[in-house]
Amino acid sequence: MTKTLVLLRHGQSQWNLENRFTGWVDVDLSEQGVAEAQAAGQLMKDEGLAFDVVHTSLLKRAIRTMQLAMAEADQLWVPVQRHWRLNERHYGGLQGLNKAETTAKHGEEQVLVWRRSYDTPPPEMPVSDPGHPVHDRRYQGLDARVLPGTESLKLTLERVLPYWHDAIVPDLQADKTVLVAAHGNSLRAMVKYLDGISDDEITGLNIPTGIPLKYTLDDDLKVIDKGYLGDAEAAKAAAEAVANQAKA
Amino acid sequence: MTKTLVLLRHGQSQWNLENRFTGWVDVDLSEQGVAEAQAAGQLMKDEGLAFDVVHTSLLKRAIRTMQLAMAEADQLWVPVQRHWRLNERHYGGLQGLNKAETTAKHGEEQVLVWRRSYDTPPPEMPVSDPGHPVHDRRYQGLDARVLPGTESLKLTLERVLPYWHDAIVPDLQADKTVLVAAHGNSLRAMVKYLDGISDDEITGLNIPTGIPLKYTLDDDLKVIDKGYLGDAEAAKAAAEAVANQAKA
Repeated sequence: MTKTLVLLRHGQSQWNLENRFTGWVDVDLSEQGVAEAQAAGQLMKDEGLAFDVVHTSLLKRAIRTMQLAMAEADQLWVPVQRHWRLNERHYGGLQGLNKAETTAKHGEEQVLVWRRSYDTPPPEMPVSDPGHPVHDRRYQGLDARVLPGTESLKLTLERVLPYWHDAIVPDLQADKTVLVAAHGNSLRAMVKYLDGISDDEITGLNIPTGIPLKYTLDDDLKVIDKGYLGDAEAAKAAAEAVANQAKA
Repeated sequence: MTKTLVLLRHGQSQWNLENRFTGWVDVDLSEQGVAEAQAAGQLMKDEGLAFDVVHTSLLKRAIRTMQLAMAEADQLWVPVQRHWRLNERHYGGLQGLNKAETTAKHGEEQVLVWRRSYDTPPPEMPVSDPGHPVHDRRYQGLDARVLPGTESLKLTLERVLPYWHDAIVPDLQADKTVLVAAHGNSLRAMVKYLDGISDDEITGLNIPTGIPLKYTLDDDLKVIDKGYLGDAEAAKAAAEAVANQAKA
């Protein structure tokens, strides 16, 4: 029996719109982001997807995307698991800064390294910073040492994968149809793993916001088929828009 | 240490507005219901409530009320458990019927018995009816024999209480601040139990829609304090509006 996994990156957030580094800052969806989430739900409904479980992060832009999409697909009753390991990459000291300003300050080359290198994290946010996750109630059950003050893409993938293996894979192996509503970089972890993408290539792979990416997997979770729902050109254009974001 | 439990009845649904028996039919909130849910979230935020867990039903009017309220209170990341035992009372063959029409057909006395008697269920919905829960995907993991085709208030309470004891009480005993977002009759089960209300009296107790009811409990879950958040007169008026619904 084949397994179905759908990955959904949250719709545009207020800070995507303002072109600021977001990371773990809990920014809400923009109006366009709300519309994208609803459109994603319509695409899932049109595809006839019947979910058994949803996994999402602890950040409201992913949670609201999931809620709006599942409302549109009329499946609000489906169980939802929230987990910090599905959060976006922590962007360290860059969080909250405008991307153009950061480029002006640190130079385009340095910013490109932070954005595009696989294993170079941005400057670390000190634990004393009120924005560090240790001060946030939602993470207080966790050992402070697992809470990042910055992350490279590599570090992000390393903290996402335990959740993939321990929570998502068992659902797929139980033949559940799974939705993961998360973030550009936490979703890259799964795409890299499923598609066997190299460290170098993954930094150039861009997942568009608000367009469900459907995988059909075999019993060993090998990819039989994958593709964005809806119009292929729209998905491509959206991915290119994401790729061009830093160049402003 | 005292424990905090908040009970929240969903905001007005489309069928509350149309004065139809709803039960397990998965009707959405009306515009007013959306506003009520958001106002409930504002009240919870003003009260400084910091939830650790949310319990809700499998019906979208409760789930959306919870989502809208928790968004307003900025606590969307709090874990949510959905469960069929928190569903509204199943209204059997009356589901979907307008209350005034039902009164015209069966007589006011009979309808009052169905609405106000503790242990008289309305006519049973046959399993062959496409509206019976056995045909609904969300209940397919359950033994068909636990799925009701009709319920008295007594039967409703009897299927709610196992969830109270096995899921909600352990959270309270672990000193979690708990929100239960559910329905008039599933919430009555908890109020009856907590306040020691008799079978006769519980049928006359009306819980207003969209106004959080906060309990402070001691270590043995005895009630230290209880009250609706916000304006007391508004809560009273809302409860009376619910009580008068059948008299249209």
